[in-house]
Amino acid sequence: MFLKKIKSEGIAHLSYILGDGLDAVVIDPRRDCGIYSKIAAQQGVRITRIFETHRNEDYVIGSEDLARRSGAAIHHGKALDFSYGEAVCEGDTFDVGDLRLRILETPGHTFESISIVVTDKNYGEDAVAVFTGDTLFIGDVGRTDFFPDQAREVAGALYDSIFGKLLPLGDQTIIYPAHGAGSACGDSMASREFSAIGHERLHNPVLQKKDRESFIDFKVNEHHYLPPYFKKMEQYNQFGSPPLHSLPQPVPMHAKDVKKAQTNGAVLLDLRSPEAYAGAFIPGSLAMPLEMISAYTGYLLDYDTDIILIPETREQIPAAVAHLIRIGYDRLAGYLKGGMHSWETEGLQYDRIGAVHAAGIGQRLQNNENLTLLDVRKISEYKQSRLAGATHIFLGELPDRIDELDPDKPIITFCGSGMRAIIAASILKQNGFTRVEDSLGSMRACKNVGCELQEG
Amino acid sequence: MFLKKIKSEGIAHLSYILGDGLDAVVIDPRRDCGIYSKIAAQQGVRITRIFETHRNEDYVIGSEDLARRSGAAIHHGKALDFSYGEAVCEGDTFDVGDLRLRILETPGHTFESISIVVTDKNYGEDAVAVFTGDTLFIGDVGRTDFFPDQAREVAGALYDSIFGKLLPLGDQTIIYPAHGAGSACGDSMASREFSAIGHERLHNPVLQKKDRESFIDFKVNEHHYLPPYFKKMEQYNQFGSPPLHSLPQPVPMHAKDVKKAQTNGAVLLDLRSPEAYAGAFIPGSLAMPLEMISAYTGYLLDYDTDIILIPETREQIPAAVAHLIRIGYDRLAGYLKGGMHSWETEGLQYDRIGAVHAAGIGQRLQNNENLTLLDVRKISEYKQSRLAGATHIFLGELPDRIDELDPDKPIITFCGSGMRAIIAASILKQNGFTRVEDSLGSMRACKNVGCELQEG
Amino acid sequence: MFLKKIKSEGIAHLSYILGDGLDAVVIDPRRDCGIYSKIAAQQGVRITRIFETHRNEDYVIGSEDLARRSGAAIHHGKALDFSYGEAVCEGDTFDVGDLRLRILETPGHTFESISIVVTDKNYGEDAVAVFTGDTLFIGDVGRTDFFPDQAREVAGALYDSIFGKLLPLGDQTIIYPAHGAGSACGDSMASREFSAIGHERLHNPVLQKKDRESFIDFKVNEHHYLPPYFKKMEQYNQFGSPPLHSLPQPVPMHAKDVKKAQTNGAVLLDLRSPEAYAGAFIPGSLAMPLEMISAYTGYLLDYDTDIILIPETREQIPAAVAHLIRIGYDRLAGYLKGGMHSWETEGLQYDRIGAVHAAGIGQRLQNNENLTLLDVRKISEYKQSRLAGATHIFLGELPDRIDELDPDKPIITFCGSGMRAIIAASILKQNGFTRVEDSLGSMRACKNVGCELQEG
Amino acid sequence: MFLKKIKSEGIAHLSYILGDGLDAVVIDPRRDCGIYSKIAAQQGVRITRIFETHRNEDYVIGSEDLARRSGAAIHHGKALDFSYGEAVCEGDTFDVGDLRLRILETPGHTFESISIVVTDKNYGEDAVAVFTGDTLFIGDVGRTDFFPDQAREVAGALYDSIFGKLLPLGDQTIIYPAHGAGSACGDSMASREFSAIGHERLHNPVLQKKDRESFIDFKVNEHHYLPPYFKKMEQYNQFGSPPLHSLPQPVPMHAKDVKKAQTNGAVLLDLRSPEAYAGAFIPGSLAMPLEMISAYTGYLLDYDTDIILIPETREQIPAAVAHLIRIGYDRLAGYLKGGMHSWETEGLQYDRIGAVHAAGIGQRLQNNENLTLLDVRKISEYKQSRLAGATHIFLGELPDRIDELDPDKPIITFCGSGMRAIIAASILKQNGFTRVEDSLGSMRACKNVGCELQEG
Repeated sequence: MFLKKIKSEGIAHLSYILGDGLDAVVIDPRRDCGIYSKIAAQQGVRITRIFETHRNEDYVIGSEDLARRSGAAIHHGKALDFSYGEAVCEGDTFDVGDLRLRILETPGHTFESISIVVTDKNYGEDAVAVFTGDTLFIGDVGRTDFFPDQAREVAGALYDSIFGKLLPLGDQTIIYPAHGAGSACGDSMASREFSAIGHERLHNPVLQKKDRESFIDFKVNEHHYLPPYFKKMEQYNQFGSPPLHSLPQPVPMHAKDVKKAQTNGAVLLDLRSPEAYAGAFIPGSLAMPLEMISAYTGYLLDYDTDIILIPETREQIPAAVAHLIRIGYDRLAGYLKGGMHSWETEGLQYDRIGAVHAAGIGQRLQNNENLTLLDVRKISEYKQSRLAGATHIFLGELPDRIDELDPDKPIITFCGSGMRAIIAASILKQNGFTRVEDSLGSMRACKNVGCELQEG
Repeated sequence: MFLKKIKSEGIAHLSYILGDGLDAVVIDPRRDCGIYSKIAAQQGVRITRIFETHRNEDYVIGSEDLARRSGAAIHHGKALDFSYGEAVCEGDTFDVGDLRLRILETPGHTFESISIVVTDKNYGEDAVAVFTGDTLFIGDVGRTDFFPDQAREVAGALYDSIFGKLLPLGDQTIIYPAHGAGSACGDSMASREFSAIGHERLHNPVLQKKDRESFIDFKVNEHHYLPPYFKKMEQYNQFGSPPLHSLPQPVPMHAKDVKKAQTNGAVLLDLRSPEAYAGAFIPGSLAMPLEMISAYTGYLLDYDTDIILIPETREQIPAAVAHLIRIGYDRLAGYLKGGMHSWETEGLQYDRIGAVHAAGIGQRLQNNENLTLLDVRKISEYKQSRLAGATHIFLGELPDRIDELDPDKPIITFCGSGMRAIIAASILKQNGFTRVEDSLGSMRACKNVGCELQEG
Repeated sequence: MFLKKIKSEGIAHLSYILGDGLDAVVIDPRRDCGIYSKIAAQQGVRITRIFETHRNEDYVIGSEDLARRSGAAIHHGKALDFSYGEAVCEGDTFDVGDLRLRILETPGHTFESISIVVTDKNYGEDAVAVFTGDTLFIGDVGRTDFFPDQAREVAGALYDSIFGKLLPLGDQTIIYPAHGAGSACGDSMASREFSAIGHERLHNPVLQKKDRESFIDFKVNEHHYLPPYFKKMEQYNQFGSPPLHSLPQPVPMHAKDVKKAQTNGAVLLDLRSPEAYAGAFIPGSLAMPLEMISAYTGYLLDYDTDIILIPETREQIPAAVAHLIRIGYDRLAGYLKGGMHSWETEGLQYDRIGAVHAAGIGQRLQNNENLTLLDVRKISEYKQSRLAGATHIFLGELPDRIDELDPDKPIITFCGSGMRAIIAASILKQNGFTRVEDSLGSMRACKNVGCELQEG
Repeated sequence: MFLKKIKSEGIAHLSYILGDGLDAVVIDPRRDCGIYSKIAAQQGVRITRIFETHRNEDYVIGSEDLARRSGAAIHHGKALDFSYGEAVCEGDTFDVGDLRLRILETPGHTFESISIVVTDKNYGEDAVAVFTGDTLFIGDVGRTDFFPDQAREVAGALYDSIFGKLLPLGDQTIIYPAHGAGSACGDSMASREFSAIGHERLHNPVLQKKDRESFIDFKVNEHHYLPPYFKKMEQYNQFGSPPLHSLPQPVPMHAKDVKKAQTNGAVLLDLRSPEAYAGAFIPGSLAMPLEMISAYTGYLLDYDTDIILIPETREQIPAAVAHLIRIGYDRLAGYLKGGMHSWETEGLQYDRIGAVHAAGIGQRLQNNENLTLLDVRKISEYKQSRLAGATHIFLGELPDRIDELDPDKPIITFCGSGMRAIIAASILKQNGFTRVEDSLGSMRACKNVGCELQEG
């Protein structure tokens, strides 16, 4: 008997493979699904069933590819019309060796959301564990903003699912959610990845709203951004996505050929750190530090263009490929071999971005320097704490709202720690802003050096 | 924040590394402790503390080696006088990033046993999880037979530790014990490796003896074997074991040199399957199928002799080495390169062992054939269900009781599935028994073919 | 600049990837071709060309699969009409960074055979190395028995290719052939895998036949077996083979289901060692020790039946799969989980095979015991040295000639070391022979114990 | 029979393990010598002998550590008094299975240099291959500048070793040298890593000086730098180095603790790329891009100080550790967890370095801007081609000659491609130069953009 959690960084996605005897099931497989087959082979089991806790909206599900490899059946909730797989209903059970899986319909995050209860046939009928999908996280609950016309209805459904179905499983029930901290599917998940129903009942902040109406009020007043790429994911996950026989392997390219491809419309996605990008970058490229791909590419990049990667080192490529194909970006044409170094030695033009220390921003604002301090964090972060005089445009909306900014004034990009600021800076540069500076360290540095902040 | 379980097959030992921020702690490290350093490096943490839940008796603890590598402090319970490390007391706390560890003294299995409660400082003071060592397992509780003079006292202490300290942590507390199914530290552990206090409270069979006296009665009437090697482990784990800079790497040997070494006193330990051993073996060798090493080597092998391995393939060597050094067998001089094939092609003598199908045993017993049916299972297994007419000698006691058997009669070795039977057969062969047959399949085959069994 | 040799055990096949700058070429890729893409990614190159030194007859070439993954062009000799790729001619050159590849047409082994000369543009025009395919091996030369009607012609062509084209490249030319010791493509290759033209000129035994006619005489008098599967390989390699998106992953099966599948016509292929097979085997199964798959499966197994593997351990499965798919056996339906142990504990019937020590054979022959001593080695081995009174039938021909043997007489199977003898024994058992014994150690043991041998 | 080349990047060091039968030998093992044991275990051999082709001066040899692990004997040339191992003499032979190794004394690079000839006992007595140490490389020959008082004598000895001993082995002899392109032991090695004596005889540029006096003249007129760390290596390799049970594992550190350690004297070694360093760096740190460690750390860092690494990502740490311990830097105290990002978010001060495009340098020089263009390449590179007006100080000598530069003038650091320039820039910053700019791309960019160059 084994249970393995597969964590996909970036989208902070948790999938699971659970096996006993000859059989195994997979919960919410990711698109690069070879890992489940590999574990199954190592453990000497065959994958017989794949469960989707709901139509995922933040990544491409790997069910169909995995089913093709393994011959497994695919199951999902009945409240949505999928073009593949079989619907399951409340109370359906599936045995995996000595384990029994039982379906709970737990709508709220989406209408077809299900949870899957695990019992051990040798040890009574009480739940040992439950796969909660995006219904209940550790320290948070699922988003309920996908159906704005039915906002109170779905929030209420979530309340009923959690308070009426999950909590009654008993405090002893270990929970295995579909996301951990860092996911776009919730702002407040714990960084701890182990918990049981009882601990959530006692300490999950949202579950302290025990009254149904208070819970609904809280949920409908939450603010979440809706990355435009979610639409694509929903379509893929309901109607099927392009099969992926093997991971795309972007080819190495010479600097000159990268330049030529850029001229012909390819997007240059620069995976390097803010410092490296600020130190020298290819004019026209989009800064996208490796760890930011999952969170922001879906706001900033179309699906119908070739992508060329500008890496710090070749070792970044496989991770970048994984992050990108998980959110459906398959047109990975190539990468700049030798990175910026090869661009520079080729004698091609590069550009740079200024840097402002936290302590310097305050100074310059106090000096009444005529500059724009552009804060690109989420509105919730901005509201909580900010520098006086900052202009707020959320990073994901910057391309659409760039006309609100004066290209001739000095502009300092600012975020939580400097990661999003460099992306914003690169977008400004793409749009002809020349006097761009990046606040390395940004808000966290401001706090540490004692800048004066406006709060609330 | 991360928690990883490291499972060491054979001894079915579970150790853990738990980290947050810059720090990590390790619970009950195994002797080949490089794996913890490797995980720490991957996660970007330093191991600052090592906890021993008790003086382990079934394997060599790796604390000192790991401390030498990492500079970590070693902690254990105060009720035993260790020659290294520092004692901790009820209520001591240790922070690892946002996690807090709290010591519970939970005597019973041993006097100095501790459990370690985990809370998440961001989510209240209720326990998230508890490392229970050998106090509470999934589906079983710790042995209490190590202090026969104080049998009721220690069983009572265990009751108090579990019912008075662990269960009160709350149903939501996930448990992380030091052993899983297959360990010599308990007969009845679940093969499932995830559970919470609440589930154990409801379904752990031993915890259903809720009355203190019933619990004690049950525990003092349990029967456990005490492998002689436990003495060595206890000594090592209290006073220190030989340091292990790198795993021993037994050298390849030609058949002729193996024979010479055998003549000079080396033990030949044959790692192959029962079928392969029965098909051809080196006279004088001890059958020890790879997966049986941890359970039976400690009964059958001295520590003061060179060991030469007879593998099926070279790939078995690293696993065999790991199993052996974990129980303190370091004198791994070499292995027969090319396995039995090279022994045979060298023209050296080999021997074989007969095989009896389950259906054939009954037949022959009914025919009143004058034979010994030697059942080498544990007494508890034997009592539960057996073939009529079987002689019972537990495998671990066979060398000492071999004089009870008639070397001139045909003898069929018998166990649960055929694994221990081949070890017994090889011991009989070593002792001059010539008419030895092995019951491949043994009791499980008997049941499946419908042999008549005596029960209870 | 890098050159990597990829050795595929079993078929003793050597393929190569050679890269410089952005580009790489692959010579004679194997079917499980992911390894070349992996190396290319690690090295930061793209595979732009694939060369086939000839239409291989002993394995399925991976060119088309690799071309699909990488976009590379496929090249082969012009003297055969392939249904894919592009023909190259004597003198064609291809640059890979600073390296230049030049085609030599080197017919003999086959008409379309080519060799590929490597020069380093920075260091003159003399050859640094040459990929010789099956034209010239280390210690041997290619087979010339595939066109029996043109035997002298092709042997002469090989002479001309080697003496007229390869040797003139100069003594300094390092050779990279398509096979090493153990291949069915030659009997006498060196176990050493590095050599240069000069060393072969001086010490390759076949190249000492410096006179064209002597060389031809020698070659036309060689005897090679032609495994029936070669026909399939030739067809695949000329007209295309089934694409392989990922390696087949045979599913684990319970003993009962294996028995059912066998009843329905599946072949049970037992991968275990001769000792293990002799110790207990499934009636009707075919013994095929893992390391013998490549050499003998192609004689003994049809392509149109499901195959179920009987492994010693699960770890054998990936190697068995690789060996089998490389020679086109893709119908790998499953494997017996838990191996023979699970068959035995299920209570199913097993059979055994007797063993005869080398010393015992002579004894029994001298005693005029009425038995068949069946020598299944190649005719060349048999002619060189044999036991008096042996009956010779080559293993590959045994199924077709089994009627020549008396099923009622005791029969001892015999080969070089005992590996092929167990396969023969299993075939005899399949055909109702009951008194079958296997000579473990066989000829090598006979020599080592000093049996009297007939030679020449 | 197997031969594996182990390439250690950075020092461009090639070591070898050669095995047959039960035995293997290792030639010139590196300090992190676990890899040889691992290969030996995989191949089923024991390492019985270790050969040092000479007392290496550019890295710490791993012979003693490897001998401790394996029990192997260590051998080296007799012309130096080593405090460990056994001397071998011209003509000594050592068998490894069917291979025979024969010692050639080949002084020149050092007096005790040996080469090791390989013959295959089954294929005559001609050499198959030769391990040439630092005597003969592919495309170059060994340095002969270590004994300036005996310059002509040692150059002549090298001539005699190559022309008198190596070339006579025959053109067919494959050569396996101790270094490849990128080593400090030669400037002109080919990037190709396979060659035979015959190809070197024909195309190695130095071997075209066939006349002894011309050869000597050429060698004594070569210029090589002698990194100060060579002294340490020579001492280690003659008298023994500190044993290395396992690789140092630098611990993660918070930014504040790194700052504290720096204050207390620790050196901060910044492993990041020139762009990243220029974008933001810790004042006082030394830039040392990962790939430059082997070549320049030995000039710039003492052995008696703690080193703290500033990495781009944690993944750089193992490579940095390997590079550093191979040249004897063992005091690896820690690394900045989270890299510069964590320094910035802590609010600590960082500094930046300007960048000048190749095209801009010419412009500014033409404008008669009062600046220093500091070229830190090797004198040989400088002499070959340079920008007019450049000041030349070799990077390795910069700390000692920094007083020659005016700290108040703008200064542009310049090298071959921009890697060494950033190191130089960081040294200038350490020394109070404030107006420092780095020529990203440097000479290669200059050539590509068509700058006017002075040559010869």
